[in-house]
Amino acid sequence: MSDKSIGIVKTQYFSFAEPPAALQLQSGRHLAPVTLTYETYGTLNNAKSNAILVCHALSGDAHAAGFHEGDKAAGWWDDMIGPGKALDTNLYFIICSNVIGGCMGSTGPSSINPETGKPYALDFPVITIEDMVDAQKHLIDFFGIEKLFCVIGGSMGGMHVLQWASKYPDKLVAAIPIATALKHSPQQIAFDEVIRQSIMADPAWLGGSYYEHGQPEKGLAVARMIGHITFMSDQSMEEKFSRKLKNDNLSFQFIDDFEVEGYLRYRGYNFVKRFDANSYLYITKAMDYFDLSGDKFMPGIRKTNIRFLVISFKSDWLYPTHQSQDIVRLLKRKHAYTTYFDLNSTYGHDAFLIEIEDETRLIRNFLANVSLD
Amino acid sequence: MSDKSIGIVKTQYFSFAEPPAALQLQSGRHLAPVTLTYETYGTLNNAKSNAILVCHALSGDAHAAGFHEGDKAAGWWDDMIGPGKALDTNLYFIICSNVIGGCMGSTGPSSINPETGKPYALDFPVITIEDMVDAQKHLIDFFGIEKLFCVIGGSMGGMHVLQWASKYPDKLVAAIPIATALKHSPQQIAFDEVIRQSIMADPAWLGGSYYEHGQPEKGLAVARMIGHITFMSDQSMEEKFSRKLKNDNLSFQFIDDFEVEGYLRYRGYNFVKRFDANSYLYITKAMDYFDLSGDKFMPGIRKTNIRFLVISFKSDWLYPTHQSQDIVRLLKRKHAYTTYFDLNSTYGHDAFLIEIEDETRLIRNFLANVSLD
Repeated sequence: MSDKSIGIVKTQYFSFAEPPAALQLQSGRHLAPVTLTYETYGTLNNAKSNAILVCHALSGDAHAAGFHEGDKAAGWWDDMIGPGKALDTNLYFIICSNVIGGCMGSTGPSSINPETGKPYALDFPVITIEDMVDAQKHLIDFFGIEKLFCVIGGSMGGMHVLQWASKYPDKLVAAIPIATALKHSPQQIAFDEVIRQSIMADPAWLGGSYYEHGQPEKGLAVARMIGHITFMSDQSMEEKFSRKLKNDNLSFQFIDDFEVEGYLRYRGYNFVKRFDANSYLYITKAMDYFDLSGDKFMPGIRKTNIRFLVISFKSDWLYPTHQSQDIVRLLKRKHAYTTYFDLNSTYGHDAFLIEIEDETRLIRNFLANVSLD
Repeated sequence: MSDKSIGIVKTQYFSFAEPPAALQLQSGRHLAPVTLTYETYGTLNNAKSNAILVCHALSGDAHAAGFHEGDKAAGWWDDMIGPGKALDTNLYFIICSNVIGGCMGSTGPSSINPETGKPYALDFPVITIEDMVDAQKHLIDFFGIEKLFCVIGGSMGGMHVLQWASKYPDKLVAAIPIATALKHSPQQIAFDEVIRQSIMADPAWLGGSYYEHGQPEKGLAVARMIGHITFMSDQSMEEKFSRKLKNDNLSFQFIDDFEVEGYLRYRGYNFVKRFDANSYLYITKAMDYFDLSGDKFMPGIRKTNIRFLVISFKSDWLYPTHQSQDIVRLLKRKHAYTTYFDLNSTYGHDAFLIEIEDETRLIRNFLANVSLD
């Protein structure tokens, strides 16, 4: 643990919408009660003006930084969050919460349905990115924060950033969407659909009601393998694996001859241990439904004072540069102060988790130029 | 049926390597007997100097052109083969044969193992692109053809072209590898591995011995859906599907909301009706094993007289342009007469089946400049 680590942290629980109250959903259905897990790092100032909301990607969680007691691995964006880091806990109060629909403590398909006493499974309502943000809004209100200093996130987290800016434009000063899009292209929908089909093709999925019997391991592992291919670039795979063999010779059998095959199997089956298959269905569906293109972004607003930093990565073919350029074009229409960087990384979509040095430089400078009050 | 159609055609059977003879395989194992299905179009001239071997892609077959009796759909490259077409049946004798390991009549894992009287299933030996070409060589010998005028093919068919040139350099005059590679990159291996994992994850696969019970439909369908995403480009998917819905509104259910989802399901489940799951395993493995890079191409040959036309497509991200450029670089080392075009298509890898006009112009001119004798 370095001296730039925030040290030991603990996930917290925040519940709201206790019946008869409920969270109204885009589908017309409602959810009650709702629990969000979250973590905070740094200190909220008296004016409550230094809060930064960090939004996680598809399989992320509230544990963005520091270490859980006894854990060797730090949170998923620990390199970015801590004293002196891009999101400097000496200056800012960082909040990260797990999305609804997830499986890391927030209410999702694996949570107990109070009406049946059993896990929701597919009785859980299909939720949207907007629903996720609405739930986050309850958490921000709970802290008594009138205005977030910044909302930041990559991939799906970037969708949350855009949704915050669009739905709650008075509630944030700055916004940093990274490696994301205003809407999924048909190619992105296609990958998500195959991921879902892979899970649902596994007989162990049992129509979603597998909780007493264990996960649909094989279907979920294959789904995740598909994901991992899309997270890397052709070049980063070449650099990491090339055609290196696991053993001296080709096996002439249907085993994993190449290192890249072993890597995918490892990542696939590891995912099964930590992520709920139904959550994968719900969250990918939410991402596919997301669409803030054209007039759907910041409806009725002619000019926004929110300051934007948009970041994409040249080798990211899952969320390609042209999608971030679309965001920038739309922001200019809203006369937003916008800074845009298309970074020269070879790491593909994973770059937003890896290119810490470049991101730190850009984000620190950007935030330093945004007045804290 | 247009007047440029070659009309009704019929698949033929050619068997060789009757025991005690056998086809020696790269794995050290052998296969006996071996049957190849094939079709021919046009007439072999007296000098037997006008034969063009057409090599098919992963899920292709011997039926490249014309119509089978009663069929409405023509062969898979009918636009390219016929009187006056790129591969002009008024001039050339066209041969197309189904690869070993396949399921379109040639010996493969679904064929009867003479030792057991049951389908080989996973007792079928793992084969390579070189094995496939060695089997084709037997067919060419059967026709008494000393030298092929040209070998042409796209995708895996392009690998066969390169293998022919490398292993039988005296047996061909010209070669046209299209949208192919000297070796699979780790990204290509990764997609193939997920395809295989998807099939093998289906309990109905039964370790490969499913022939009495029917195909592992769900796993095979998901596998094929993955393939279809890689065959198209981001742009061609946008043009074909954008975010068009199948119905008026989002369903908020786990059904196919978007047209692209319906398309993938349709293509996936349609594939199950026509292609053997084990053949998909064997053929993808052969493609992953293929490696003619560096000194492995045309070993011991300093200068070749084979004339090459190499074609790639700018939007093909499965077999990207840089892989065809690698082929061209290697051909120049062998002092081969080489023409290279990187065509401006938006259709992705599918372009080799779609960009008929451009291919026709290039291939016709190229072949016209190669002396028939």
